[in-house]
Amino acid sequence: MPAEYSKHYGCILIFPERSDSWSYGGYAARKAFCEVCEAIAQSERVTVCASEKQYENARVMLSEKIRVVEMSSNDAWARDYAPTFVVNNSGGIRGINWSFNAWGGLADGLYFPWDLDDKMARKLCDLYNIDMYDYSGFVLEGGSVHTDGEGTLITTEACLLSKGRNPDMTKSEIEEKLKEALGVRKVIWLKNGIYGDETNEHVDNICAFVKPGEVVLAWTDNENDPQYALSKSCLDILENETDAKGRRIKVHKLMLPKPVVVTKEDCEGLDTCGFKPTRTEGERLAASYVNFYISNETVVMPFFNDPADEQAKKVLSELFPTRNVVPVYAKEILIGGGNIHCITQQIPDFISE
Amino acid sequence: MPAEYSKHYGCILIFPERSDSWSYGGYAARKAFCEVCEAIAQSERVTVCASEKQYENARVMLSEKIRVVEMSSNDAWARDYAPTFVVNNSGGIRGINWSFNAWGGLADGLYFPWDLDDKMARKLCDLYNIDMYDYSGFVLEGGSVHTDGEGTLITTEACLLSKGRNPDMTKSEIEEKLKEALGVRKVIWLKNGIYGDETNEHVDNICAFVKPGEVVLAWTDNENDPQYALSKSCLDILENETDAKGRRIKVHKLMLPKPVVVTKEDCEGLDTCGFKPTRTEGERLAASYVNFYISNETVVMPFFNDPADEQAKKVLSELFPTRNVVPVYAKEILIGGGNIHCITQQIPDFISE
Repeated sequence: MPAEYSKHYGCILIFPERSDSWSYGGYAARKAFCEVCEAIAQSERVTVCASEKQYENARVMLSEKIRVVEMSSNDAWARDYAPTFVVNNSGGIRGINWSFNAWGGLADGLYFPWDLDDKMARKLCDLYNIDMYDYSGFVLEGGSVHTDGEGTLITTEACLLSKGRNPDMTKSEIEEKLKEALGVRKVIWLKNGIYGDETNEHVDNICAFVKPGEVVLAWTDNENDPQYALSKSCLDILENETDAKGRRIKVHKLMLPKPVVVTKEDCEGLDTCGFKPTRTEGERLAASYVNFYISNETVVMPFFNDPADEQAKKVLSELFPTRNVVPVYAKEILIGGGNIHCITQQIPDFISE
Repeated sequence: MPAEYSKHYGCILIFPERSDSWSYGGYAARKAFCEVCEAIAQSERVTVCASEKQYENARVMLSEKIRVVEMSSNDAWARDYAPTFVVNNSGGIRGINWSFNAWGGLADGLYFPWDLDDKMARKLCDLYNIDMYDYSGFVLEGGSVHTDGEGTLITTEACLLSKGRNPDMTKSEIEEKLKEALGVRKVIWLKNGIYGDETNEHVDNICAFVKPGEVVLAWTDNENDPQYALSKSCLDILENETDAKGRRIKVHKLMLPKPVVVTKEDCEGLDTCGFKPTRTEGERLAASYVNFYISNETVVMPFFNDPADEQAKKVLSELFPTRNVVPVYAKEILIGGGNIHCITQQIPDFISE
């Protein structure tokens, strides 16, 4: 599995629609998604999947260079259920079809049903004429793993060992499965992710490779913040680990914004899900600047109208000197439960066979 | 507009589904469609559009080399609402988006609504990254025109001058529109098509070019058959016309099968449409061997379990000496209201710009 900072063929996103994920009918979320799409489309081929109902809106809102295809889904998290692509030494590509169960299935999943999401990896492989490795016996979301492209993978125990995913597998069995599917030799297990992250704390919201041997880690210096212990635990693990090539890992801290909370107005614009409110007033959302997407020539990062926005941008600009850092105001995406990285899935550059 | 016998990039079909078109839930129709797909896929890229509901069936029934994409439609007539593709002198391609109104709209159309069909040309152009010419102010189905690839087009007055298509345009205005859109210089107007053809007698069921200057024409020697006068009128017109290059047109007669009629059993397996029976017992279907598809290396033609089947195959084999003629038993397709040509749309070979 190539690292996200290696060259891409393109990127897949899904047009947001469901009224219990996206507030006030999704109009603002769709605008934010479109901003992300356009920033990525500056330097790679973007395909946006839209339902029949939203196809026309997507086509009209997105610029011509972006391809819109009709494809049904339950929600809009391409990272988690578009295929994870792997490339062999000859440049040949395969898409992995994991099992998807809405981040925990009947144990602690976030919506029901998830059948359309779960079919997307197959459909996308077919769309691109890319052969598929079928791992549909194993539950995994793309957002729960990051690789350095040189044999190292990072993930979180909170997610991969959760009761709603593969409860009958041991940690070492899960590790073997990741090694086999993704061609990695070393798995670094962080304990946790971002406080309150409903995905059971996906790694892609707390820690990401920026180059081999270097990561960014979401951080707060406030020891009274519930996030502090979680980030500190990650730091301790990372600083005491080596990667697949035996390197120590350099950690760049990316300071969190102030808590981003759900307002009464946000709540009033969301349908219920499973007869329960989707959000509650005052709820802290899992805001983190780590949830960025690395395209060929840009880094598309979330902004929260927070004083820390510019500092985070500065850090990423220094870490990605050849790329233009493009901020997108992302609260509307965050209300849905994830952020910019979660709504994208890169297709690495490949050679047609 | 290249002729169908020029080299193709590929072919588009739609997986049949609606229970008022395809008898007994469409199981037999889907089998026949799949046979057609496989015969075409021997020598060109086939994409089959399937609804979300039928996607899995399509994927399982079709071989791996055929691409299945999710796309909603009202029915399965790719010829009539997939784009008509045109190619310029540099090999650049465009798809034409005509207006589609289910063969006559509220005047004498065959079902309501037709909104999903009408969107397909746009979606397909986007899917293939092919730019579109928008003729959505003009009602036309792909099955109502045939070209020789050298500037000549044949069509029928019964269809193009029908009250349900472009009633505010004169014959010469319609002719100018065809010339402009399709790059033809000569339009040959036949009066009629096949007796009982619900499309208002599309040309593709009665007459088709087999090479420049030569056509096949559906024919019967039985002067008491209501088809006789219709075919005779076509013959008279064709024999007294010249094509865009000034050539006389050579007509090869393709003898019709005996009338193919709807049985009681057929009727019992069809849902109603618009509160009316879709078919009635004893109804004569518009069976014709002219409704074949020319792929790069095959000609896929309908068989009707009729003594004339083999003779028709012999005629086509002689007319297409470099292609393998593949018969598909097609009554199940015919019950839906068309035949093999109607369910296909070729994409001519082109050069990416």
